[in-house]
Amino acid sequence: MLDLLRRLFPICRSITGDGVRETLAILREYLPDLAVHDVPSGTRVFDWIVPEEWNMRGARLTGPDGGVIADVSDNNLHVVGYSEPVDRVLPLEELQEHLHSRPDMPSAIPYVTSYYARRWGFCLAHERREKLKPGLYHARIDATLAPGSLTYGELVIPGEEREEVFLTTYICHPSMANNELSGPVVLTELARWLLSKSRRYTYRIVFAPETIGAITYLSFHAEALKKRVVAGFNLTCMGDERAYSYLPSRKGGTLADRIALHVLRHFYPDFVSYTFLDRQSDERQYCAPGIDLPLCSVMRTKYGSYPEYHTSLDNLDVVTGKGLAGGYAVMRRCLEALEENFVYAAEILCEPQMGRRGLYPTLGRAGSTNGHVANLMNLLAYTDGQTPLLDIAETISLDIFQCVEMAKILLEKRIIHK
Amino acid sequence: MLDLLRRLFPICRSITGDGVRETLAILREYLPDLAVHDVPSGTRVFDWIVPEEWNMRGARLTGPDGGVIADVSDNNLHVVGYSEPVDRVLPLEELQEHLHSRPDMPSAIPYVTSYYARRWGFCLAHERREKLKPGLYHARIDATLAPGSLTYGELVIPGEEREEVFLTTYICHPSMANNELSGPVVLTELARWLLSKSRRYTYRIVFAPETIGAITYLSFHAEALKKRVVAGFNLTCMGDERAYSYLPSRKGGTLADRIALHVLRHFYPDFVSYTFLDRQSDERQYCAPGIDLPLCSVMRTKYGSYPEYHTSLDNLDVVTGKGLAGGYAVMRRCLEALEENFVYAAEILCEPQMGRRGLYPTLGRAGSTNGHVANLMNLLAYTDGQTPLLDIAETISLDIFQCVEMAKILLEKRIIHK
Amino acid sequence: MLDLLRRLFPICRSITGDGVRETLAILREYLPDLAVHDVPSGTRVFDWIVPEEWNMRGARLTGPDGGVIADVSDNNLHVVGYSEPVDRVLPLEELQEHLHSRPDMPSAIPYVTSYYARRWGFCLAHERREKLKPGLYHARIDATLAPGSLTYGELVIPGEEREEVFLTTYICHPSMANNELSGPVVLTELARWLLSKSRRYTYRIVFAPETIGAITYLSFHAEALKKRVVAGFNLTCMGDERAYSYLPSRKGGTLADRIALHVLRHFYPDFVSYTFLDRQSDERQYCAPGIDLPLCSVMRTKYGSYPEYHTSLDNLDVVTGKGLAGGYAVMRRCLEALEENFVYAAEILCEPQMGRRGLYPTLGRAGSTNGHVANLMNLLAYTDGQTPLLDIAETISLDIFQCVEMAKILLEKRIIHK
Repeated sequence: MLDLLRRLFPICRSITGDGVRETLAILREYLPDLAVHDVPSGTRVFDWIVPEEWNMRGARLTGPDGGVIADVSDNNLHVVGYSEPVDRVLPLEELQEHLHSRPDMPSAIPYVTSYYARRWGFCLAHERREKLKPGLYHARIDATLAPGSLTYGELVIPGEEREEVFLTTYICHPSMANNELSGPVVLTELARWLLSKSRRYTYRIVFAPETIGAITYLSFHAEALKKRVVAGFNLTCMGDERAYSYLPSRKGGTLADRIALHVLRHFYPDFVSYTFLDRQSDERQYCAPGIDLPLCSVMRTKYGSYPEYHTSLDNLDVVTGKGLAGGYAVMRRCLEALEENFVYAAEILCEPQMGRRGLYPTLGRAGSTNGHVANLMNLLAYTDGQTPLLDIAETISLDIFQCVEMAKILLEKRIIHK
Repeated sequence: MLDLLRRLFPICRSITGDGVRETLAILREYLPDLAVHDVPSGTRVFDWIVPEEWNMRGARLTGPDGGVIADVSDNNLHVVGYSEPVDRVLPLEELQEHLHSRPDMPSAIPYVTSYYARRWGFCLAHERREKLKPGLYHARIDATLAPGSLTYGELVIPGEEREEVFLTTYICHPSMANNELSGPVVLTELARWLLSKSRRYTYRIVFAPETIGAITYLSFHAEALKKRVVAGFNLTCMGDERAYSYLPSRKGGTLADRIALHVLRHFYPDFVSYTFLDRQSDERQYCAPGIDLPLCSVMRTKYGSYPEYHTSLDNLDVVTGKGLAGGYAVMRRCLEALEENFVYAAEILCEPQMGRRGLYPTLGRAGSTNGHVANLMNLLAYTDGQTPLLDIAETISLDIFQCVEMAKILLEKRIIHK
Repeated sequence: MLDLLRRLFPICRSITGDGVRETLAILREYLPDLAVHDVPSGTRVFDWIVPEEWNMRGARLTGPDGGVIADVSDNNLHVVGYSEPVDRVLPLEELQEHLHSRPDMPSAIPYVTSYYARRWGFCLAHERREKLKPGLYHARIDATLAPGSLTYGELVIPGEEREEVFLTTYICHPSMANNELSGPVVLTELARWLLSKSRRYTYRIVFAPETIGAITYLSFHAEALKKRVVAGFNLTCMGDERAYSYLPSRKGGTLADRIALHVLRHFYPDFVSYTFLDRQSDERQYCAPGIDLPLCSVMRTKYGSYPEYHTSLDNLDVVTGKGLAGGYAVMRRCLEALEENFVYAAEILCEPQMGRRGLYPTLGRAGSTNGHVANLMNLLAYTDGQTPLLDIAETISLDIFQCVEMAKILLEKRIIHK
């Protein structure tokens, strides 16, 4: 995952343009069946209109002495996203209103965009900005804003059932590691794992620009998704080592929420729990009123909750191989739990005679039915043909995977059936 | 409000009689449309019978030396309510069983009544009673108990909807300020405010004697009220400065309860919360099984919970202009909240593009969507055509009036509709 | 109860055999209408088969010097339950695998069984076992394992209603006092009390071997029980003085659970609360999925939670007359609460005029309606024709028996009816 992340890191992505297409092309090397869709600029998608496509070939700010102040060839955060083209010489005082920096993070280049209002601007470290001297500066942005398309990738991995699990991440931020690339690389790895195994559910996987991409996707597919999706996850900020986090669906309590909370409580008990009011990603669209997909977010450290967020410092010092592996592991556990969340029913009334099946000690003495035997009997006490395994696991205070192992034994012995 | 209270204070009220009529006549100066109804003595009202009317023209107790011990012209609490007429000279030891005082409140004249059993008696300060010397006393009560009527006032203020808000208070206690007059004067002021504005709901306002008046009113109107009333409040003890208090409906959780709790939690967070078991006023009738109006009480310091309760010390030292203003303010906020508790629905699916409506920053950078923008987006996230504004306010941790201001903006921009 | 317990104590009971029959014969002296049923060995009962009958005439282990190591005539725990017959001389090292002792309870003879796997064995105190010297031992068990029957007792005590309360206990353990005989002796006493009084409900009382007996009973009667039983209790461990305990039904919240919790909270507030995961008795069968009788256990100290459990030390030092009286008292209170848990409805709307019925003070003054009058009015406020007395008692913070006394007064005065 770290190698893929390093390949994707330098690309200058935005909500449209070649950066998105280049990103998807690389992902297709790993997921050949990933379909790439283009939606033309000007297309109406619910309340929005797909904007003109932005492509940036170069952007450089030079000082009175000809020295380079900011150049996107060094770091593509230096230009305000969706900047209009400019080639002007202007004095510092006039330039200032086109500059963006963070006094609270003096060494970081901030990430700034202006998708829906025409502007141009440069972003730079505040400590650099403070040293700028009066004089004439040359601002040159070689960019195009022109009819084109919004691009997203979609991969459907069929399973035994038509019911779908929906997985999505965004591909619209430039060179930032946790709050951009950790999502796509973990989702790519999850997709490859799903492809390698038999699947109960069908998986629908979407890589799209945040907000406008999600709205565009929903404007075409909302009705189908509402019919088929049993659980969904928005993948973002999956790669640092500092925390595990949970952000619920709009009203909480969906299957996705319950699976996420079960996995987090059992395997990452010190996870951080947010509310829907803390949302800032595509659950804003996928959980909007009238859409209301059963979708939540399981993250490492949440966007907005770590200092390097939306700056040039969100780099490979923040995201690590170990961090990504953790993000992958928690999501994989969630999907495994989903796949195994069957409803079982006992074959017979009252307790079965476990002893003659080798599942109960034939010698009755104090303590002989503790531990594994007690767990097995507890599982059986709730396999009533109505209660999904997840709920049984919560009731009998085990994790669902322990219950899966026991259910396998009971299935083999024909004591229960699905 | 304080002026009105001072005018009403000296009147000798009881559950029937001229005092009630005089009180209503003064209220009619402020509320000319207040209708006054008389129900004849002997009328059967559910399990009760409207009693004979009691009118008291004078009552005086004089001592062996001719000195005045108690005279209702000094304080109308001196006579036991509904005392039968008497004109007797009797020795102290015999008089004692007709005297009432409070050893725990030695300077207070207690308020005592005997509506449904024939008695006569005088009430006086315990410190005075202890100084009474043996000898012959002259007890004279010039009162009539005779067929007449029970009198109550009713005012219907029509609104856009036929659904009603029910507001009631009682007018049967003599000269006491918090546990009598604070209710009628605050309700009068609320009625005048309601008359001065456009109204969503119809308001039904009742001034009646406690218990027998409420039962009488319900015996005629229970079915209509059960059909139309969406929320109701019993106004009592609205005028001191010591506390705000809440007493729920029989099972709690009605619209009235939820409005009251919302207003109290947000604006009077140190309010005192009682249970229905603490009731002693007309919620006993309005929330009785089979009646079950959605009615609760929002008070300043609750009856029975302050030392001066039901004594001559419940006077204008207890009730103040500031205290009444607070009682008025909390009730007005409750009614304003009720009027604004609409269900809104978004016009469109997914988030609207707020930026082009000037409601979202066009420049995207860290923190740009905090505060007001976040509140607006949170409100939008729950305007799903099903959730009343009160519930949304609770969910997004704002008060309903903040939500009203934001809803107005969204309505103007045609992003939501009622 | 202690006398009956002493009579039953020496009998060598198991899940089948003469010990069970002898036990039931003695119970019939107290409950002549107790019906005794025999189910033949080999009968299929759900997933189980009624086993061969085990009868033990003698069992003795003698040492190399001819000294008696263990003899069931001293204590019938010395032989492993359902031991096959044996008559062998064998060296100590070979004997060891047939010996059972508890290193953690060195002076106690453990209780060990092998119902469904052919074995033989002796149980003895660990301190005795450690002193055994090498040499040849003589193990002799004179027992039969042969087709016979499983025996249980059943007593139906009819009431006014066909709805049933189900009471059960087990009769399959040999000489142990709390975890065997306390159940049958308390249940016998309860049955005698029920016979002595008029009854609202019909009572079905079953004395059966644990597990196989309950399964056998259910295999014949499950459908009838599911239709008729409104509440049930499993009686076990009713006789020590150390604690009161509660173990819920499978999902909790049944009428039996709520009655048990009400009685325990009000009268035994320091009771110990277990979960269904702690179950080890016949709620395993009576609460199994698909059976789901509304049955819970109210106990003194729960099986498995006291050190003497399943050893020879569970004797009359553990169980006392006072302990049994407590077990009887808590169960009787539960049954009394059940019998009194009627739904009452008020005769009239609004509060009745209590004063003219002598239930309310005719003199109104501060504090005159506290205490008993307030309780009475509170009860009336919830007798709405829908709420059982148990729920009202919980709401108004009284115990159900206090409510019963008040309901009697209101019934007499025709203010409420059932």
